[in-house]
Amino acid sequence: MNTFGERLKISTFGESHGSGVGCIIDGMPSNIKVDLGFIQNEINRRKGGLNLYSTQRKEDDIIEILSGVFEEYTTGTPIGIFIKNGNAKSSDYDDIKDLFRPSHADFTYFHKYGIRDYRGGGRSSARESIARVASGAFAKLLLNEFDIKIKSGIYSIGGIECNNINFDYAMESEIKSLDIDIEEKQKEMIMKAKQNHDSIGGVALLCASNIPIGLGEPLYYKLDSAIGALMLGLNGVKAVEIGNGVESSKIFGSQNNDEITNSGFLSNNSGGMLGGISNGDKIIIKVHFKPTPSIFKSQKTTTTTNKETILNLKGRHDPCIAIRGSIVAESMLALIIADMLLLNASSNIKYLKQIYK
Amino acid sequence: MNTFGERLKISTFGESHGSGVGCIIDGMPSNIKVDLGFIQNEINRRKGGLNLYSTQRKEDDIIEILSGVFEEYTTGTPIGIFIKNGNAKSSDYDDIKDLFRPSHADFTYFHKYGIRDYRGGGRSSARESIARVASGAFAKLLLNEFDIKIKSGIYSIGGIECNNINFDYAMESEIKSLDIDIEEKQKEMIMKAKQNHDSIGGVALLCASNIPIGLGEPLYYKLDSAIGALMLGLNGVKAVEIGNGVESSKIFGSQNNDEITNSGFLSNNSGGMLGGISNGDKIIIKVHFKPTPSIFKSQKTTTTTNKETILNLKGRHDPCIAIRGSIVAESMLALIIADMLLLNASSNIKYLKQIYK
Amino acid sequence: MNTFGERLKISTFGESHGSGVGCIIDGMPSNIKVDLGFIQNEINRRKGGLNLYSTQRKEDDIIEILSGVFEEYTTGTPIGIFIKNGNAKSSDYDDIKDLFRPSHADFTYFHKYGIRDYRGGGRSSARESIARVASGAFAKLLLNEFDIKIKSGIYSIGGIECNNINFDYAMESEIKSLDIDIEEKQKEMIMKAKQNHDSIGGVALLCASNIPIGLGEPLYYKLDSAIGALMLGLNGVKAVEIGNGVESSKIFGSQNNDEITNSGFLSNNSGGMLGGISNGDKIIIKVHFKPTPSIFKSQKTTTTTNKETILNLKGRHDPCIAIRGSIVAESMLALIIADMLLLNASSNIKYLKQIYK
Amino acid sequence: MNTFGERLKISTFGESHGSGVGCIIDGMPSNIKVDLGFIQNEINRRKGGLNLYSTQRKEDDIIEILSGVFEEYTTGTPIGIFIKNGNAKSSDYDDIKDLFRPSHADFTYFHKYGIRDYRGGGRSSARESIARVASGAFAKLLLNEFDIKIKSGIYSIGGIECNNINFDYAMESEIKSLDIDIEEKQKEMIMKAKQNHDSIGGVALLCASNIPIGLGEPLYYKLDSAIGALMLGLNGVKAVEIGNGVESSKIFGSQNNDEITNSGFLSNNSGGMLGGISNGDKIIIKVHFKPTPSIFKSQKTTTTTNKETILNLKGRHDPCIAIRGSIVAESMLALIIADMLLLNASSNIKYLKQIYK
Repeated sequence: MNTFGERLKISTFGESHGSGVGCIIDGMPSNIKVDLGFIQNEINRRKGGLNLYSTQRKEDDIIEILSGVFEEYTTGTPIGIFIKNGNAKSSDYDDIKDLFRPSHADFTYFHKYGIRDYRGGGRSSARESIARVASGAFAKLLLNEFDIKIKSGIYSIGGIECNNINFDYAMESEIKSLDIDIEEKQKEMIMKAKQNHDSIGGVALLCASNIPIGLGEPLYYKLDSAIGALMLGLNGVKAVEIGNGVESSKIFGSQNNDEITNSGFLSNNSGGMLGGISNGDKIIIKVHFKPTPSIFKSQKTTTTTNKETILNLKGRHDPCIAIRGSIVAESMLALIIADMLLLNASSNIKYLKQIYK
Repeated sequence: MNTFGERLKISTFGESHGSGVGCIIDGMPSNIKVDLGFIQNEINRRKGGLNLYSTQRKEDDIIEILSGVFEEYTTGTPIGIFIKNGNAKSSDYDDIKDLFRPSHADFTYFHKYGIRDYRGGGRSSARESIARVASGAFAKLLLNEFDIKIKSGIYSIGGIECNNINFDYAMESEIKSLDIDIEEKQKEMIMKAKQNHDSIGGVALLCASNIPIGLGEPLYYKLDSAIGALMLGLNGVKAVEIGNGVESSKIFGSQNNDEITNSGFLSNNSGGMLGGISNGDKIIIKVHFKPTPSIFKSQKTTTTTNKETILNLKGRHDPCIAIRGSIVAESMLALIIADMLLLNASSNIKYLKQIYK
Repeated sequence: MNTFGERLKISTFGESHGSGVGCIIDGMPSNIKVDLGFIQNEINRRKGGLNLYSTQRKEDDIIEILSGVFEEYTTGTPIGIFIKNGNAKSSDYDDIKDLFRPSHADFTYFHKYGIRDYRGGGRSSARESIARVASGAFAKLLLNEFDIKIKSGIYSIGGIECNNINFDYAMESEIKSLDIDIEEKQKEMIMKAKQNHDSIGGVALLCASNIPIGLGEPLYYKLDSAIGALMLGLNGVKAVEIGNGVESSKIFGSQNNDEITNSGFLSNNSGGMLGGISNGDKIIIKVHFKPTPSIFKSQKTTTTTNKETILNLKGRHDPCIAIRGSIVAESMLALIIADMLLLNASSNIKYLKQIYK
Repeated sequence: MNTFGERLKISTFGESHGSGVGCIIDGMPSNIKVDLGFIQNEINRRKGGLNLYSTQRKEDDIIEILSGVFEEYTTGTPIGIFIKNGNAKSSDYDDIKDLFRPSHADFTYFHKYGIRDYRGGGRSSARESIARVASGAFAKLLLNEFDIKIKSGIYSIGGIECNNINFDYAMESEIKSLDIDIEEKQKEMIMKAKQNHDSIGGVALLCASNIPIGLGEPLYYKLDSAIGALMLGLNGVKAVEIGNGVESSKIFGSQNNDEITNSGFLSNNSGGMLGGISNGDKIIIKVHFKPTPSIFKSQKTTTTTNKETILNLKGRHDPCIAIRGSIVAESMLALIIADMLLLNASSNIKYLKQIYK
């Protein structure tokens, strides 16, 4: 179950403190130009260690493409990818070898499998997300062929929300904030958490534009269904909203409906999809991340043999996983839309007749 | 893409105004006693036409089991199910044959497929959810063997939230409200919407208890991932929260973490799962439904040939889809947990050794 | 695991002596004209009870289309199909309720599931194949849009092989023989088996023509791989050959290779595929059926409680399952090629650019 | 489509002359001891360059395990594997850059994808099979826990068949022959082909023993169905037989049926499965390989721009792919049975009750 996607399938492997993290991208159409600089740049956007607001673990994160690309073009065969782990400090984890971190996957992995790689969270570590970002970069190369754009940014930190959304600004912001006027307050909130040996939650906002009408495969691989699966599957995500989201549960139909004119919809409360199929409007998603569970305050916990103890954690952790998480969420959205684009190609006999002339 | 589940697979078919709705349940273990009365009762819980707060379309909804059950026990072969449509009034839809209802799947189905069954929304109708409830009832038969319980109720209508959650009360409430003291206000909100030819949004709360530790298949069929997929795939759902949900994005790690003692967790902000695997605590989910898009107020829309016009809808629609939707969501949760229970059976060599002695 | 196909997915249900057999066809492109007469005719080609060479069980086999078709066109939504069982004589099976038929699935179903529907073989009965033929008929409607033709016939009965292959003649032949000059000897072989209360094996030959180059998804859903899966999955099939098949294991490369000219291949030992991808030449398949295991001679067997006994079978069985099996095999080939046609639509960015202009 | 298996999923990547070949093994139960020496030994059994009867390309073929194993035990997370290509001579292929080899996948890959990695056949090369053997070795570690054994050998070369089957002898034989008395004649046949710049076909025999009754998931992931898919998906395989295979199509039911006693079946014409489910007897499979298409005789062919020409091939190729292919086929059988073992764990409520006590 380490694979997702239907026509564009991503399978990942690797742990935080093993030799590295990798993936196979299967189903990429052939003859797409592979811009390696762009891909490396996407990976770099996810990097930690760059400033005060992220983990101090700094990795080179150089992508190796092991297969599927020939003379700079995709061949239609599976693309193998590997990214070495360099800066893993396993000794940081010696003390918690037999302990569970509260609200961390340590507990459930150990109980499910009867064994765990305790070093850095092993497979449950956010380190795995580098494979998602690498895959997402390939998906973006595909989407670029159709001028489809995917963007993300930080909408909220600890409840401090942006007002004026600016995805371009998020590209420059150290915390990927969407609002230059709110950014400073959001930074202060993160520093406050950090100084208290604590962490803080946050919200990423995603936007996909220039989407063809018709993407999404009802009834069980709807666009919103796939978004729900991949966003709630990200580490630390506890809620997902599409379009008007939570707000839509509080209002009347006449307030929430998007009326239609011959030049498009008068509003976009739907967030770009109806009945799980894209309606041509912008796809708008909010992804809510909990605070990093690995904090440096003392916490009650138990050992693997169920003895009570106090956890005093060391190591290097992001004070707010939403920040780097937003890049991962953006990558997932690219992958979903790319997959839906491929799937839709056989939905209508008219499309097939264009292919098999 | 009309199938979901990995070991317990559900495939559905049927439209609102066709001959009926059906499904295949594949992967049910053999030798489970099939209590037909229980299954019919589950289907009846979803029924409309029972009171002022739901659609006036009243169906018999008698389930026919076409295969997979022999002398009252499951045989391990696929269970075919069919429920006839009886009370379909297709003529209600003649007027909107060439129109799109704002915020309804009419628009996207027509554009994706170049054809649509306009009668009652066709495949996009909530009528399909009867197959989900029937399947969910079978899942509950399986879960009952392990004393796993799934419950649901209405948490909020138009922003009016319950305070004292009582799942037993929801079983009696006409609007499935979780709080006897709030129910009346919630009913008033629905009647207000109805009188204004409008509709209203709402929130369902789900709870699954007595869950074994270890359910969920990381990394791409995590428990939360499957919940995200199936809940956001329900008609009208625009947001899903797990455990502390949206709230967790606003607070500190020290506030959100669930400390551990040798008798369990001190809180359940995680909503019963860590790293996508059940932690043994209650699974808690909030599902946010938008207001029914089919309202009786005049709305701007276009025809299928993109001419602007005004829609004045007739027909029979739920004023608040969250109410009957809560039963569907509950069924989906039962199906997810049942699937995870089967999948987990091969996670550990220790389990296999218990089987193949 | 009662589903097959990747983009065109078929899920079946139903048993020999239950209420009927049905299926869901998922992934049919929209806007294909549904010729119900053609579909019923395909189902009729599989029928028993028509002459001395098949089972005496005679069924009406009227297809009901329950969904997915609107005003004679496919809508892109799942097509539900049901065919009632009419002429089931369950009493025929009372005597073998607790016995296993040698070389029949009775034995393994009982041991796997701990329960079986003993009436007519239950789920393991060839009766299920009617759903395959119905699905195959839909696949043919799709293939017809591209002038792809699928044919079948009986190549051999009890080792008596045809010389002059004529697929048109097989359409008229009572035993679907491919050779008018050999047919009589083949019929005699069947009658000999029948008179001896025995059964006889046979071989079906399949041919698909006008196949676009490029169908097949390497490496694990190659064209030959899918053919292997679906043909060896048919009841009673014990060997499958592609192109030169068994013979190719006996000869030299220079004898087996198909040389290439600018007007095509000089031979077709490959049977129309290379590396699991169609090469544009005819697809040629041989499917070897064992003799019907249900024979009327006395045989040693055991009871479900492992007591030795002698089986003296009654009932109505085909003396040679290859005959009706050939129609099922033909249907499976249609389904495979249709699925591959859909899958291939996203293999190359050039195709996608034709769709998303 | 570079993934196979349902619970034990294998995804492969890599080309003949790229950086290497790798795979992800997903679904291995946790807590299985990983004997790296055994795995490397399995890989070595497939190696070329060891004697006159195989390709002269000699590779180190050292396996790297990149993830999923911790302190010598499987953790339940995906196992990443990589094997570097060392001895690739791409210059051998410069001459055929724009040519197609008759009966080789060159032709179809180019036409399907509009691009191909011509070096050594790229993805279509048998080099990929090293990932299958590595995966199969892991499957065997799982099967060993239940004393299930998988064996293979060469049954026939160019029509010269073994009489006295001895799987132990095949382990020592340079050509993996099953019969010490026939081996020499088989070797002569290979040398004859080689001296004539030609190649020769052959047949592998597979045997799996100590199989629990009940493996196989009807109706579309039957044991025979999975065998058909994976064997016919191997490079050069043109026919597959199960048990009595082709022979069973020539005889009477009374000759082919396996009668039952309370100590087992009186014969094994079924090859260990009935209705696609294992019956507890030995699984017996014959896999027919065509001769290597890459021969050194002159052959007619065309260029990628469809001009006629003569191909005079250079390079290093196996004169008989059946030999090394037999090891790959054996690995595939191990993978199928392992997958079926995992899948069967949820077939019966009785098994689940043993797990979730």
